[in-house]
Amino acid sequence: MGAPVEPESVRHVACVGAGVIGGGWVAHFLARGYRVTAWDPAPDAEQKLRRLVDAAWPALTELGLAPGASRDALTVTSTLDEAVAGAEFVQESAPEDLELKQDLLARIDAATPAGVVVSSSTSGYGMTEMQQRCATPERLVVGHPFNPPYLIPLVEVVGGERTAPEAVRWASRFFEVAGKSVITMDREVPGFIANRLQEALWREALHMVAEGEATVEQIDASITEGPGLRWPFLGPCLTFHLAGGEGGMAHMLDHFGPSLKSPWTRLEAPELTAELRDRMVEGCEETADGRSIADLVADRDRAVIAVLRAVREVRGGGA
Amino acid sequence: MGAPVEPESVRHVACVGAGVIGGGWVAHFLARGYRVTAWDPAPDAEQKLRRLVDAAWPALTELGLAPGASRDALTVTSTLDEAVAGAEFVQESAPEDLELKQDLLARIDAATPAGVVVSSSTSGYGMTEMQQRCATPERLVVGHPFNPPYLIPLVEVVGGERTAPEAVRWASRFFEVAGKSVITMDREVPGFIANRLQEALWREALHMVAEGEATVEQIDASITEGPGLRWPFLGPCLTFHLAGGEGGMAHMLDHFGPSLKSPWTRLEAPELTAELRDRMVEGCEETADGRSIADLVADRDRAVIAVLRAVREVRGGGA
Repeated sequence: MGAPVEPESVRHVACVGAGVIGGGWVAHFLARGYRVTAWDPAPDAEQKLRRLVDAAWPALTELGLAPGASRDALTVTSTLDEAVAGAEFVQESAPEDLELKQDLLARIDAATPAGVVVSSSTSGYGMTEMQQRCATPERLVVGHPFNPPYLIPLVEVVGGERTAPEAVRWASRFFEVAGKSVITMDREVPGFIANRLQEALWREALHMVAEGEATVEQIDASITEGPGLRWPFLGPCLTFHLAGGEGGMAHMLDHFGPSLKSPWTRLEAPELTAELRDRMVEGCEETADGRSIADLVADRDRAVIAVLRAVREVRGGGA
Repeated sequence: MGAPVEPESVRHVACVGAGVIGGGWVAHFLARGYRVTAWDPAPDAEQKLRRLVDAAWPALTELGLAPGASRDALTVTSTLDEAVAGAEFVQESAPEDLELKQDLLARIDAATPAGVVVSSSTSGYGMTEMQQRCATPERLVVGHPFNPPYLIPLVEVVGGERTAPEAVRWASRFFEVAGKSVITMDREVPGFIANRLQEALWREALHMVAEGEATVEQIDASITEGPGLRWPFLGPCLTFHLAGGEGGMAHMLDHFGPSLKSPWTRLEAPELTAELRDRMVEGCEETADGRSIADLVADRDRAVIAVLRAVREVRGGGA
């Protein structure tokens, strides 16, 4: 497949489905200066969508709009065909229902100009199962955002079995140009990456509430007052890289490896093979990108202070 | 047991063990205006400790020191007995080794004035097993901090079987007065709360790396560019409360409950009983504390923008 335009040249994006996620995408693309056509079958969809965009606009203005960005660049169409007709990229954000997604993606595929990449916001289905009814499945990818898509940078991009590798590369590049942080996966994994991690934490939280070990309030406070303050800056791997002191991840795994077997969480620990150990250690070194533990600690402290202050200010002036 | 002073009247704190965590506690207590005596058996402990405090001081100064706070209020003693002799509170932060902790806590207990509460920084052992060799186990509690203790507010407080409930109450109040965010647990649970949640996420991350599903860099980016940006402000429960749209947690569980069974993460999902459902829904309402979904969304957006900006500034000027 050959996409009609380069990712850098896209000017017109179509959003199919305009609920919380689809509407969030609309707000994001408008703020990045794109012309957006949107369609949603709900009778009050346009009103809700414009309300969502209006509510997000002050935040987006504060973060900095792209030159020429305007809410007037949004057209809500009365049919799916009109929405995608002139689009150079299509983002689908329908409810999570496999049958519905399969049908909708086939309809989008039939109505969208040849070669234009079509991306799905699905948070859980693989593209292999979703693209089954499409005539040109090679242009379909998953582009999984996080709520709200106009603020949280992450998009996970992955194709299905019948997706052309070129479509995955095109979509990843397009999302980057459109201001997102992109993780391109080379294989389909249920839940992608972030949701698997989030879901493991969430299931443990549900178990704790079910067993009466902690309340909802304690669970939330244990994150917002604790590890959550590090996570906007240090991911889980680099967090533990620092927990190893000067020895970093290597020390952490070699010395605290056995405590992996402790009865913390109901998720069984993986076997800490030499290979896994080395992969973690090398991965941390790559991710640290030349920064020593002391550098990382200094950066972390500055970041945590900045995050603490930011959160305090919002709380202080909050509703 | 009766503590010799009220939590509000404590002026002198002893820190036993002065590595990364113990030293972090020393820095915290100094910044909050306490007089601190510290002891650590390592030959170069004093030098390392003063270096750690010096490194943390600019950050602590920026966050705001308590009146009279001074690094000169630190005395490093040559024996454990000297360190705890006049203390009104003792925090133990020795390496995670059960035998060592049992012996050390017994020695601290023998040397500390009667009734003074002794707290352990352990991240994993229960106080029931740690207090076994103590003559007056009723004053021993766990006070589990997060790294670095001078910046991350959370302390999880819990007693052992032989701990007096009064000691748990005293310690919780003392930590609050000393500027920490306290979660008081009413029972011992391995790993307490935050570490169980963190550990579930961490184990799933290790599994993904072991299976070649994601790299260390992708895992860290999936958090720092994604859900991690929400967690300093919205815990996992309120995050999903918002994911339910206007219907909140009730809608989330009633409609997406079945997807709990999806093969996301290797942690088995709990049975979503009516009781668990109600507990989650009521817990979210309590935690939201009168704020509507719209209020929470507005607060979240302001917080995420503030956090994004804070992180960007640090990255921009970073090493």
